[in-house]
Amino acid sequence: MQAKPSGTKSPANHRPRTKPADVRLNELMNAAEALFLEKGVDATTISDIVDAADVAKGTFYHYFPSKNEMLAALGSRYTEHFLARVEQAVGSCAEDDWAGRLRTWIRANVETYVDTYRIHDIVYTNHHHHDRSNQDKNAILKQLLGIIEGGISAGLWAPEHPRVVALLIYSGVHGATDDVIAAQTNNCTPFADSVADACLHMLTKPASGQSR
Amino acid sequence: MQAKPSGTKSPANHRPRTKPADVRLNELMNAAEALFLEKGVDATTISDIVDAADVAKGTFYHYFPSKNEMLAALGSRYTEHFLARVEQAVGSCAEDDWAGRLRTWIRANVETYVDTYRIHDIVYTNHHHHDRSNQDKNAILKQLLGIIEGGISAGLWAPEHPRVVALLIYSGVHGATDDVIAAQTNNCTPFADSVADACLHMLTKPASGQSR
Repeated sequence: MQAKPSGTKSPANHRPRTKPADVRLNELMNAAEALFLEKGVDATTISDIVDAADVAKGTFYHYFPSKNEMLAALGSRYTEHFLARVEQAVGSCAEDDWAGRLRTWIRANVETYVDTYRIHDIVYTNHHHHDRSNQDKNAILKQLLGIIEGGISAGLWAPEHPRVVALLIYSGVHGATDDVIAAQTNNCTPFADSVADACLHMLTKPASGQSR
Repeated sequence: MQAKPSGTKSPANHRPRTKPADVRLNELMNAAEALFLEKGVDATTISDIVDAADVAKGTFYHYFPSKNEMLAALGSRYTEHFLARVEQAVGSCAEDDWAGRLRTWIRANVETYVDTYRIHDIVYTNHHHHDRSNQDKNAILKQLLGIIEGGISAGLWAPEHPRVVALLIYSGVHGATDDVIAAQTNNCTPFADSVADACLHMLTKPASGQSR
């Protein structure tokens, strides 16, 4: 296969047979995602997808037996991108600033979800409850639990049940953000900050003498 | 219409035309719910439902244009029962024991959801995200916010954003309980207690000098 010089763009009407497979797969998935967002999954045909991606129908079937598998692949990619964006935000914090890392994790979760919820809804429509132990949820939970355990090791926090706190933060942030999405709030940062404030309280010890 | 003496049960093969309308409607809904749980919604026909309820097909159509409306009515009934069960549990606490009332609200939520999640999944399958501002969620949130505001008025708690805390508790409890349901834990009470512990921390002030 002849590699094309990077940076060279094919004209729209030229079928780019010489692109590397991963680039072609990515373009195919982008085309499908754009059509799913625009027309809905049911109204989008495989012909629509291959036309938009400017590839032959066989290329689609080389990667995916049907639209369902394409949808599952878009779901995995969504979670990968989600995790990477949150990881990058958290990575900008000082390594020992566990409160800052948790706050940033929460803010990045709220902002990424608000920015991408339309794709989220498409790829996860049939995942809710029917797959209570899904892997994508577990990957995000693991990332969160890593921060909580870091703060515990550093002697900053001492929650009785770290996993329960992680589950409450994960689900709480997700659900509270649904509310902000429904309200169509323009700037979600103040909301993200108040969510982070409330969640941080779960990890700090209450003042002595306070009624619980 | 001739009223039947209360307490008299019709034999199974006798069509009970003289039952009050609300009793008949309730029996019809019970029959549908049992079949949906047993066979699934798609595999259950209206004929199955009227046969199981021992009523004429016209009775079904008197109340519901189609299976969808029956499903919506089962959803409303599910939420009503859920709210009533939680309300009753909370009502058993002393009126001024706000921490106890919140703890009981959380425990009752976990237990009721664990007991009824199969019906929940049937009636809410198509509600997730597509209806982020749904009324059933709002009714449960209102119940929770009432307890939080009671504790604030009593001077016990002073959260900066009561509604954010309510959203986090509501979604956190729901999502964390999904995890327990997935794990098929036999006794969910210890879990419910640790969820309540963590949530109560969101309302109590952190000890002074603690890093946030």
